Amino acid sequence: MYKIGIDIGATNIVFALVENLKVLKTQKISCPRSKKEIINVIKKNIKELQANLGVSKIFGIGIGVPGPLSKDRDKILNPPNLKVLKNCSLSKIFEKDLKISTKMENDANCFALAEERIGAGKGAKIVLGITLGSGIGSGIIINGKIFQGAFGSAGEIGHMSIKFDGKKCSCGSNGCFEQYASQKYIKTLSKISPQELVLLAKKGDKKAQKIWKDFGKNLGIGLANIINILDPEIVVIGGGLSNSWDLILEPAKKEIKKCVLSPLSKKNVKIKKAKLGGMAGAIGAALLFDEK
Amino acid sequence: MYKIGIDIGATNIVFALVENLKVLKTQKISCPRSKKEIINVIKKNIKELQANLGVSKIFGIGIGVPGPLSKDRDKILNPPNLKVLKNCSLSKIFEKDLKISTKMENDANCFALAEERIGAGKGAKIVLGITLGSGIGSGIIINGKIFQGAFGSAGEIGHMSIKFDGKKCSCGSNGCFEQYASQKYIKTLSKISPQELVLLAKKGDKKAQKIWKDFGKNLGIGLANIINILDPEIVVIGGGLSNSWDLILEPAKKEIKKCVLSPLSKKNVKIKKAKLGGMAGAIGAALLFDEK
Repeated sequence: MYKIGIDIGATNIVFALVENLKVLKTQKISCPRSKKEIINVIKKNIKELQANLGVSKIFGIGIGVPGPLSKDRDKILNPPNLKVLKNCSLSKIFEKDLKISTKMENDANCFALAEERIGAGKGAKIVLGITLGSGIGSGIIINGKIFQGAFGSAGEIGHMSIKFDGKKCSCGSNGCFEQYASQKYIKTLSKISPQELVLLAKKGDKKAQKIWKDFGKNLGIGLANIINILDPEIVVIGGGLSNSWDLILEPAKKEIKKCVLSPLSKKNVKIKKAKLGGMAGAIGAALLFDEK
Repeated sequence: MYKIGIDIGATNIVFALVENLKVLKTQKISCPRSKKEIINVIKKNIKELQANLGVSKIFGIGIGVPGPLSKDRDKILNPPNLKVLKNCSLSKIFEKDLKISTKMENDANCFALAEERIGAGKGAKIVLGITLGSGIGSGIIINGKIFQGAFGSAGEIGHMSIKFDGKKCSCGSNGCFEQYASQKYIKTLSKISPQELVLLAKKGDKKAQKIWKDFGKNLGIGLANIINILDPEIVVIGGGLSNSWDLILEPAKKEIKKCVLSPLSKKNVKIKKAKLGGMAGAIGAALLFDEK
C-alpha cells in the first residue's frame, strides 16, 4: 500500500510517494496563486498517481501546511505565508472528492517526523526537529509520535524570546529566537543572500565568517533553552540555512556546553544535520500514517 | 495501603502520609546537617509510622530531593542546595533497610505531580508546575506522568535565557529566567525580604509595587516562551514567592497575551495558583506510586 505526502509551501508544492517507510518518488511543482488552482493541481497529481498505481493501492494522503492548524487538524487557521488557504479544510476536501483517508499537519511537524522515522533522528525517543529558513519552525517527536501540545500548537520555538528588550518581532513580541537565528538575522547584517554569504565565508571573508559565527552562537543560546526545558535525545537541524552548517555548528555547540544545566544532557544530547533535504516535509506528511 | 512521601530540602524535611490520593497527615521537621543524621531521622519517622499503622500496611516510600538525579532515579548527583547528599543513593538505602518499595524524584517534579493529581491542575492533560523561590523549579506532567526527558533533566526552565546579554547566572550562562523571576531578582532591587516587600506593596508603596509589576512582566515573558514550546493546558505556580500572586498575575498575563503566538493557546491556557502549599513536594513524592 502506498501513501502520498504533499508539502504545500508558499513557493512550491512537493509530492512524495512512500511505501513501507521507503521513499519511491518525489516531485516538485510551483505553487499556484489561488486556492482553487492549488486544490486542482494537487487533485490532478493524485489522480495521475492513482492511474499509474491502481486506485485501491493508495492507502492515504498526508498534507503538510504552514501552521497554525485547528486542534483536530482538519482546518488551516491563518497561515501568514499562505494566506489563500486561510480557514481552508483542505484534508476534508480531498477526503470527500478522492475517497482516500487524509491527514493534515503543520509542515515543521512533518519535517521532524520524517527525520525521526527515517532520517537523522532515526531510533531516538525524543527528537526536536528544527528548520532554519525565513523563520524558525520546529516539531517535537516523543516516542514516535508528534507532540502537539494541549491546543495543537507545541513547538513554536521561533517565537521564544531570548532577549526580551531586543529586536521587535512581527508577532508583537521582542527578541524572538528567529530574529537572531534565521534569514531575518542575516538580512539585518548583509545585503547578499544567505547562500552567497556562505560562499563568501568559506572563501575566507572575515566579515561573513563573523556573521555566521554570531548566528551559530545565537542558535546555540536558543537550542540550550529548549534542551533545558525538553531534554531531547537529539536535535535535527534542516531548512535552507542549514547549508551554513560548517560555519555555525561549533559556535552553537560551544554555547550549548555553556548554557545547558544538566551535566547528563550537556554530555549526551546530539546535534545533527537533517538527512532528507527539501523533500523532508512531503515525506513526513506521507509518514503521518506511520506515527507510533 | 498507605504511601509515605518525603520532601528533603535544605531547611526542612516534610513528611506526608497518603492513602488513595487522600492526604491523611503531614509533618515538618528541621533538616539535619549530615547525611547520616538525615538518613537516621527519616528512618526513625518511618518506623514510628510503621508501628502506628502496621508494618505491612505501608505500600511505598516516595522521596523528593533537589535535582539533578541520575536518569534511573536511584542516585542524587550534585544538588547545589544539599551538598551532603551528593552521589547518595538514598532510595536504595531505605529500600534495603526498611524493605519497602522506594522511589526518588526531583522535588519540582513531585510538586508538579501533586498539583496535577489532586491540586490546581487536576484533570488537565499537560500541566507545567512552577515553583518560584530562591530559584525557579519546574516539572512537566503529560497524561498523568512526569515527563523526564531523554536524560532525566526536562523542566530546567529556571536556566532558560530570556536575555542572552543580561545578568550573569551562577550556572555560567547569562540572562537566565531565574535572574528575573525568583528571589534573585528581588534581592538585586530590595534590601527587605520578599514577604515584607509584598506587605509594603499591598500597603500602597509605589516602589514595591513597581518591583512586583516588573517581576510579573518577567515571569510572563518566561511563561510565554514555555507556552510557545510546550503548549500546556495549565500552568500551576507555587513556591514561597507565589504569595505575591495578586501583584504579579496581571502583568504576567498581559505579557503572555502579547508573546504567545498561537491564538488557541493564548486564549485557552490557564494560569493558576498552586493549591497544596508547602506540603506539595511531600504529597507528590507519595503520589509517585500513582503516576499513570
